[in-house]
Amino acid sequence: MKIVYSADHFLHHAPGELLFGEFVPAFEKPERAELVLARVREMELGEVIAPQIFPLEPITRVHAPGLMELLQSAHKEWVELGRSGAAYPYTWPTRGMRMDRVPTSLDGRLAFYSFDCGTALTATSWQAIKSSVDVALTGATLLQGGERAAFSLCRPPGHHAGADHYGGYCFLNNAAIAAQKLLDDGAKRVAILDVDYHHGNGTQQIFYNRDDVFFVSLHGHPDQEYPYLLGFEDEKGAGKGEGYNLNFPLHWGTEWPGYEAALQEGIKRIAAYAPDVVVVSLGVDTYKDDPISHFKLEHEHFTRIGAMIKALNKPTLFVMEGGYAVAEIGINAVNVLTGFKGA
Amino acid sequence: MKIVYSADHFLHHAPGELLFGEFVPAFEKPERAELVLARVREMELGEVIAPQIFPLEPITRVHAPGLMELLQSAHKEWVELGRSGAAYPYTWPTRGMRMDRVPTSLDGRLAFYSFDCGTALTATSWQAIKSSVDVALTGATLLQGGERAAFSLCRPPGHHAGADHYGGYCFLNNAAIAAQKLLDDGAKRVAILDVDYHHGNGTQQIFYNRDDVFFVSLHGHPDQEYPYLLGFEDEKGAGKGEGYNLNFPLHWGTEWPGYEAALQEGIKRIAAYAPDVVVVSLGVDTYKDDPISHFKLEHEHFTRIGAMIKALNKPTLFVMEGGYAVAEIGINAVNVLTGFKGA
Ligand SMILES: [Zn+2]
Ligand SMILES: [Zn+2]
Repeated sequence: MKIVYSADHFLHHAPGELLFGEFVPAFEKPERAELVLARVREMELGEVIAPQIFPLEPITRVHAPGLMELLQSAHKEWVELGRSGAAYPYTWPTRGMRMDRVPTSLDGRLAFYSFDCGTALTATSWQAIKSSVDVALTGATLLQGGERAAFSLCRPPGHHAGADHYGGYCFLNNAAIAAQKLLDDGAKRVAILDVDYHHGNGTQQIFYNRDDVFFVSLHGHPDQEYPYLLGFEDEKGAGKGEGYNLNFPLHWGTEWPGYEAALQEGIKRIAAYAPDVVVVSLGVDTYKDDPISHFKLEHEHFTRIGAMIKALNKPTLFVMEGGYAVAEIGINAVNVLTGFKGA
Repeated sequence: MKIVYSADHFLHHAPGELLFGEFVPAFEKPERAELVLARVREMELGEVIAPQIFPLEPITRVHAPGLMELLQSAHKEWVELGRSGAAYPYTWPTRGMRMDRVPTSLDGRLAFYSFDCGTALTATSWQAIKSSVDVALTGATLLQGGERAAFSLCRPPGHHAGADHYGGYCFLNNAAIAAQKLLDDGAKRVAILDVDYHHGNGTQQIFYNRDDVFFVSLHGHPDQEYPYLLGFEDEKGAGKGEGYNLNFPLHWGTEWPGYEAALQEGIKRIAAYAPDVVVVSLGVDTYKDDPISHFKLEHEHFTRIGAMIKALNKPTLFVMEGGYAVAEIGINAVNVLTGFKGA
């Protein structure tokens, strides 16, 4: 299996995040990708290649131009306003606020296009964000070239980013952009399986009204877990997309048997959908020692997740998402991939 | 003119706010009310009285039960979760998120019921919030008892708080609750004139569909100023409320002539509405040296604002809102009141 990786991810390094009332060091940090890369090499998973550079066009197929412009210009405008550090929103739209009118000020646009105050934009974030998309798109082209599977070692992650909003350490939705590219290049149906601990609210929102992408997510129950406001069982898609969104919200403390049962059901439903390609949003924050999560998976279970995905017998693109127990993130992510290879 | 004041406002003292990417000391602090009180006494404006204690019922006429419960329980739940400091939200609803379902977790409810991450809930905030409402309601009863005018020295302020969302240092909308009480007790029409530097987004949202409250606001243009997502000129009310919402968004650098022209127009429209009572959301952050604002009013202009409001010749309740140039806040707030008295 080829691994796509770019050191440009180092260009995004958030100084911190507001979490539970305190400004704390960011959990999403460059070491994450490096630990996964080191494990990839240690386990000799496959050749590590650099991404191709893509134009912005595949991104515009998924994201609003205003969001893309903001991600590129926010820090420059921030500095021009005499501010230091990274750019963060501090207010946001809620009921009764204007959603029909994009604000013109920087703070207004940060508010309009975001959904949390923990996702920092620095001077060089855009280069890393764009590079992360290129890593995902290059993985998609590997499948198009006949590879059975590929691993896009994306960072920053993407699954929380919606068509017109960023948050949850995510700016652009790498997995969604790759899925859309596969469709645009000829695939008829793509399934996205999101095994990150958190609900892939962005991916759900992007494809909620469509039947050419089947989105399946297993995640911490939004009654207990970020992003709190999406990811419930009754969200099944809308319009033409009805029936093509499947959420498995699982409660804190979920162990392998409960997780496996949900995953088995999700995989059964994906098989019935008969996708041309499977995109896996690969987060490993389901690990028992993850510092911000509450599932109880062990190293070996990640291997089994990989084997279960393999049973779908489809071209499969793995896209790196979350996972914050830094010491073990490499083991767990690569276990999924070796489980897939070896099954 | 009687002044209603309670020292319970000291029970709300935010440790800080997230503003422009930094956790900074809160601008909204107890000294504000004390400086206004000192100036009230220095100028011998009138008798300072304590508020009556009202039941929660007048609040429920304006605010969602879930918001009221959250404001009372949030800090206790916060501590039970093992957290320290004050309770803040860190994520929020945007497009694609659930608005139809109130989350059950604390962080979910904080997200659902708020619109910024700078408005802290401490262990004793609720007592101050409730007391601030009582201060406003007591002012309303003074008018009902025949007083020509009264000054409710509310703190925390209220005009950013909507029916089901808090933010902008505001938790419950003191002016809106007082206006509703006046209506419930027999007034047919109430005009709310909001001269705070910031748009009274909460007040607008609460009464947007109604014709028994005419809301007029002069404020920093949302293209430049918080709350960014409401307060535009084209927001004129909806349904039965169409024509009963009037915004004067004014640009940074506005000086007295521009301000006076807008105020004159707003007052003319209020006179045409022929309200039984006028409630003034009295913010003085329009002052030229206010640390977070960008208008250019001088001390004497506040006196003139008071005189212009007096010309309406209606029972008038002044409700304290913002104003952060602490040294001058007393002079400017009391200048409005002496301008009113003396005109
Ligand atoms: Zn995650
Ligand atoms: Zn203000």
